Amino acid sequence: MAEPKRANPLLAIDLGGTKIATALVSWEGHILCQENIPTLAEEGVQAVVGRLLAALDRVMGKASVPLSSLTSVAIAAAGAIDIEKGIVTSSPNLPGWQDVPLKDMIQTAVGLETFLINDASAAALGEHRFGAGRGVNNLIYVTVSTGIGGGIILDGKLYNGVSGSAGEVGHMTIDAHGPRCNCGNIGCLELLASGKAVAREAQRLIAQGSRTRIMELAEGELENITAITVATAARQGDALASAIISRAATYLGIGIVNLVNIFNPEMIIIGGGLARMGDLLLIPVRKAVAERAFQLPAQRVSIVPSQLGENAGLLGAVAFAQSLSKSL
Amino acid sequence: MAEPKRANPLLAIDLGGTKIATALVSWEGHILCQENIPTLAEEGVQAVVGRLLAALDRVMGKASVPLSSLTSVAIAAAGAIDIEKGIVTSSPNLPGWQDVPLKDMIQTAVGLETFLINDASAAALGEHRFGAGRGVNNLIYVTVSTGIGGGIILDGKLYNGVSGSAGEVGHMTIDAHGPRCNCGNIGCLELLASGKAVAREAQRLIAQGSRTRIMELAEGELENITAITVATAARQGDALASAIISRAATYLGIGIVNLVNIFNPEMIIIGGGLARMGDLLLIPVRKAVAERAFQLPAQRVSIVPSQLGENAGLLGAVAFAQSLSKSL
Repeated sequence: MAEPKRANPLLAIDLGGTKIATALVSWEGHILCQENIPTLAEEGVQAVVGRLLAALDRVMGKASVPLSSLTSVAIAAAGAIDIEKGIVTSSPNLPGWQDVPLKDMIQTAVGLETFLINDASAAALGEHRFGAGRGVNNLIYVTVSTGIGGGIILDGKLYNGVSGSAGEVGHMTIDAHGPRCNCGNIGCLELLASGKAVAREAQRLIAQGSRTRIMELAEGELENITAITVATAARQGDALASAIISRAATYLGIGIVNLVNIFNPEMIIIGGGLARMGDLLLIPVRKAVAERAFQLPAQRVSIVPSQLGENAGLLGAVAFAQSLSKSL
Repeated sequence: MAEPKRANPLLAIDLGGTKIATALVSWEGHILCQENIPTLAEEGVQAVVGRLLAALDRVMGKASVPLSSLTSVAIAAAGAIDIEKGIVTSSPNLPGWQDVPLKDMIQTAVGLETFLINDASAAALGEHRFGAGRGVNNLIYVTVSTGIGGGIILDGKLYNGVSGSAGEVGHMTIDAHGPRCNCGNIGCLELLASGKAVAREAQRLIAQGSRTRIMELAEGELENITAITVATAARQGDALASAIISRAATYLGIGIVNLVNIFNPEMIIIGGGLARMGDLLLIPVRKAVAERAFQLPAQRVSIVPSQLGENAGLLGAVAFAQSLSKSL
């Protein structure tokens, strides 16, 4: 294995359910070269890892950087991760990924020290080190995309909990009489405020006969509707779309109020695909916190959008690798 | 001011809405001598503090301990505390207590270094240092009495949040369509699972004509009904009382599931007056966690009753003072 060097670039991977991002990232957190490929998880673990390694090769080729000048490989992956063993233990977004020793697979193939972390935890670290949370000791990152996840930074460090699964903020019950979630719980925040929830609510209302621009944007097909379609319609003034987004944002606000009352954090960072909605999402969330949370923590918390956007996971994996790299 | 000595006893005070406990406590956490008096908060701050000081005097008199041999005074108080300034900023349970510099008042009167902390935070520290949480790095203490509060120990230390108000676990929304809480939020755990919630639900159902032993235990007066009356009736086999306790315990379980998914803690300690119900409360809570929480953190967490009972606040104030005492 090549001897890693501090301050040299790293290879970074963000393995998601639909997309794999691979990149060469400078020690300072600048993306020098990037290549994204579709995950195609249904092809199986070996096929996915093979294409991932090929993408890494192309990134290094494009950047003309020799392996010997790299520090390490940093991986963020969607799923439950055993950090110490470097294993993806399970993943709702990567069917078939059960107890996959991804860290060792990549380390052996690439020949560089490799680190593996959950993607939401990584994103929290990324925002803390390189993004909206620089200099903030005490923050919660909430990712709102297909699902809702989170990462917790306390006292300047990632808080993992006793078995590494802390931060599942999408699976707190906010509606005790709500529908059952895939996770086994009831009335979870994710069921009510995620991208999937927005799309499903739009499909339900349209199937019931509601009139809306959403269907034009979805080219007449219910199954084409995503949270982005709904947000676009809302921005164009569509009443139904606005009501759906506003409902989801209010539920998200309720979840954020819970976090404010429990953690009294300095900052809450909203990331994930739905964060691109900007004020459409942030204004109702801030309103919920101002109206519902305890006054002291409500006044003290900043609720801000992600700065790193879809690179939060990549850059957070880098921050994680830097914090653990043996060469430091 | 007398020079405090490490390892000598401390004076401890637990100032609650209905009761003030004062005690002489050994460095090792043994209560050597105790005197409880009613708070009578309606008499005003000066009167309460005056009686509190008189009780402290009697405790020292009974124990025949000279002031010079004591380490410090440790106070736990029900309310929002500015830890750095030693001020009770406000307290729903102590009407009229607004920005009361309790630490300085006691320090000046007694002549010993004095420490002030919120009572739920204190109880968490107490259980961690002297009770059910000894040796546990990572725990949440949930007090279920008239209201619901909490204290969070992470990495072996009290987690206060950025302005000292962390741990308000009773004021997370678990029913987004529930009733409004006095705190300004909606569907709070406290509204659905506290002692007040249990008593109110019993009063409501009885007023609607439900038949139950509760009324005999309450000597025929609706306003005599407390959570303890309801629990007693439940233990005697009363169906209505059992249903009310079971409902509250299930709601408490939902709140605890949220904490398990978010914190992935080693231990959750249930304290406060309702913890005396024992299995009546604990079994449904453990069932909710087993059924609803993520498997990994659910398997890892112990859900246990408080060991220190109503002395958790007193002993926790002692633990807090010990951790901060300048003489250490």
